[in-house]
Amino acid sequence: MNYNFSDKIKSLKPSAIREMFKSLVDPEVISFAAGNPAPESFPVEELARLSADIYANSAVSALQYSMTEGYAPLRAAVTDRQRAKFGVVRDNDDTLIVSGGNQGIELAAKIFTNEGDVVVCEEPTFIGALNAFRSCGANTVGVKLHDDGIDPEELDRTLAATPNAKMIYLIPTFHNPCGTSTSLEKRKAILAVAKKHGVVIFEDNPYGELRFEGEDIPTLKSLDEDGIVIYCSSFSKILSAGMRVGFVIADKEIIAKMTVAKQSEDVHTNIFFQMLCYKYMAECDLDAHIEKIRGIYKHKTSLMLSCLDKNMPDCITYTRPQGGLFIWCRLPEGVTDCSDYIKACMANKVAVVPGSTFNCDPTKPSNGFRLNYSTPSDEQIVTGVERISKAARDMFCR
Amino acid sequence: MNYNFSDKIKSLKPSAIREMFKSLVDPEVISFAAGNPAPESFPVEELARLSADIYANSAVSALQYSMTEGYAPLRAAVTDRQRAKFGVVRDNDDTLIVSGGNQGIELAAKIFTNEGDVVVCEEPTFIGALNAFRSCGANTVGVKLHDDGIDPEELDRTLAATPNAKMIYLIPTFHNPCGTSTSLEKRKAILAVAKKHGVVIFEDNPYGELRFEGEDIPTLKSLDEDGIVIYCSSFSKILSAGMRVGFVIADKEIIAKMTVAKQSEDVHTNIFFQMLCYKYMAECDLDAHIEKIRGIYKHKTSLMLSCLDKNMPDCITYTRPQGGLFIWCRLPEGVTDCSDYIKACMANKVAVVPGSTFNCDPTKPSNGFRLNYSTPSDEQIVTGVERISKAARDMFCR
Repeated sequence: MNYNFSDKIKSLKPSAIREMFKSLVDPEVISFAAGNPAPESFPVEELARLSADIYANSAVSALQYSMTEGYAPLRAAVTDRQRAKFGVVRDNDDTLIVSGGNQGIELAAKIFTNEGDVVVCEEPTFIGALNAFRSCGANTVGVKLHDDGIDPEELDRTLAATPNAKMIYLIPTFHNPCGTSTSLEKRKAILAVAKKHGVVIFEDNPYGELRFEGEDIPTLKSLDEDGIVIYCSSFSKILSAGMRVGFVIADKEIIAKMTVAKQSEDVHTNIFFQMLCYKYMAECDLDAHIEKIRGIYKHKTSLMLSCLDKNMPDCITYTRPQGGLFIWCRLPEGVTDCSDYIKACMANKVAVVPGSTFNCDPTKPSNGFRLNYSTPSDEQIVTGVERISKAARDMFCR
Repeated sequence: MNYNFSDKIKSLKPSAIREMFKSLVDPEVISFAAGNPAPESFPVEELARLSADIYANSAVSALQYSMTEGYAPLRAAVTDRQRAKFGVVRDNDDTLIVSGGNQGIELAAKIFTNEGDVVVCEEPTFIGALNAFRSCGANTVGVKLHDDGIDPEELDRTLAATPNAKMIYLIPTFHNPCGTSTSLEKRKAILAVAKKHGVVIFEDNPYGELRFEGEDIPTLKSLDEDGIVIYCSSFSKILSAGMRVGFVIADKEIIAKMTVAKQSEDVHTNIFFQMLCYKYMAECDLDAHIEKIRGIYKHKTSLMLSCLDKNMPDCITYTRPQGGLFIWCRLPEGVTDCSDYIKACMANKVAVVPGSTFNCDPTKPSNGFRLNYSTPSDEQIVTGVERISKAARDMFCR
């Protein structure tokens, strides 16, 4: 049979990164391509003990249908923590538990965009967000990301030229793929521009807890007095990615619409793991656990950066993250397309992600590529950076 | 701030049934309104034991990011079981694990409909499906459901009159809300009509395992030689509803599109519980467990039917399900709107679901209402049926 698929799905490709995972079967290939949390960051013993408690004391409610909004004690605990740590919650805000942050992004696109409407994004940006917008039939328009964030004046011009822009998608803290953060000054200016145009901002903050250096910068949401910012984060990088538990905090009216949209997708998020997240927050020391994770990533970033400093030719530049999971590298000025270099890395048995993956138009070439340091072992970081540095020397800086 | 929501979401209301749950705080109210599996149907001890095994032996893979397609051993086990029990799998088919059957419905709508396209449904039908279609911007057109299924000729006329119909949504076995099944003859005719118009069928089969009387009728999917049927079911009614694990079986090309759409929603379904479902299938006796659940529901249906036979005035008719979770009642001929009766039931402290909830246009009145027998206790069934029977005698048949 010839299937007639919807316009929004016809052109949608699987995430290049997730497809790359499948091809990483060669055990000699070192992958800097993933975005997985370090396996040693999962508190397995505590989760096992708390899971046994749930089966012993609340099995029926942990296995039965539940409320779309999420497990009430977890919603309260998340709200309290985000208010205390990130100044996130306004009086008129509400909290929705979602099945991972990606669902929060997709739901926001669903409730704010008609087919053909536009989401304005930093470029490069998170591929999962780009695909979520595409899957809702929305188009994406990029604003170039600098190391201290997008230029608010360019955002202003872009919004002025895009009357059907319905949302601005930003990762202000420890950006994926760039590892950089938007400055406080730019955050304030971006907020003012969004307000001027009446366009909501989606602040994606999956890595906010993972600062291992420097001082926190106030979240956009904490600066928002008008309910213009939708804030999203998750437990993926601090407890477990595989359980798919995240949350969205936004004005009650927005949360109500996201809730009915979520009800039509998966009714509610796995309730057993919602209860487990709550119990972990209530009975264990989440702050101490996160401190441990920060230590792991501080070590891994330092190691990768010192390997890059030692081995990479000077013509290759890269960001120096203070948190998160990623380093962004740029090829020498004048090289506009990293494809040949990525192939050379692969020939040297290292997988990295080409920057074009993160462009609104992925056929537009990029001179950047993304390195992940959370998943590989120390030994893999050392060997892998040696290999990609050699490829760079061979190709660009003989 | 004034939010400008998308057209598809503006009019979307929370499920009347899920909202009703929230109002059921009065402990004296007996609810026949839910669709929850019986709590005694959860195999708590086995799930606790198998969960402990997962933490002990495969914790990292159970907590880490995983493949969108689903846990490979679970996909294989599901495929084998559906082939053996329901003749479901064609050579060119593939299986996708979804976060509950509702996600399967929503993904199908997303990949097949543009905004303004139509999904043809039985009327009445499952409210969760109607809302999933609406949330994708699709319109719904109903074909009247008779006790042996919709009239294939009426389906033919409807499709002929609806050139932008892109999908037919059916629950052929133990219908929600009606409890009835479509006859084999009609299944064959419906398939021929769909093929004639080149419109795919979504066969929703959440209750197929729950037959407690009579003989299985071949699934639409087992009769499908052309890849026109998308088959969906879940573990919600046989292991746990709260874990949100379901599956879709369809032509590879359809599954590939649903997979990229799912990736943009929740990346993958909670992997711990996917592994748990697989281990239950591999290490426990799922058939014996389902036999036990069938026994529970056979008992509860018989009890509710005998209470209705004894107490309900003859002017109220109702279906006699051979499986599933629901009985559908019809008010006397000439009564077109059940609203006043539903209010009288509520005044007598019994909640039932008005039939209009299940209409494509929920403002269109219905003379039917839905009773659920899986959630209430035996005592509640006896007392609740006495109360709604008294309300019926008082209102219609003094």
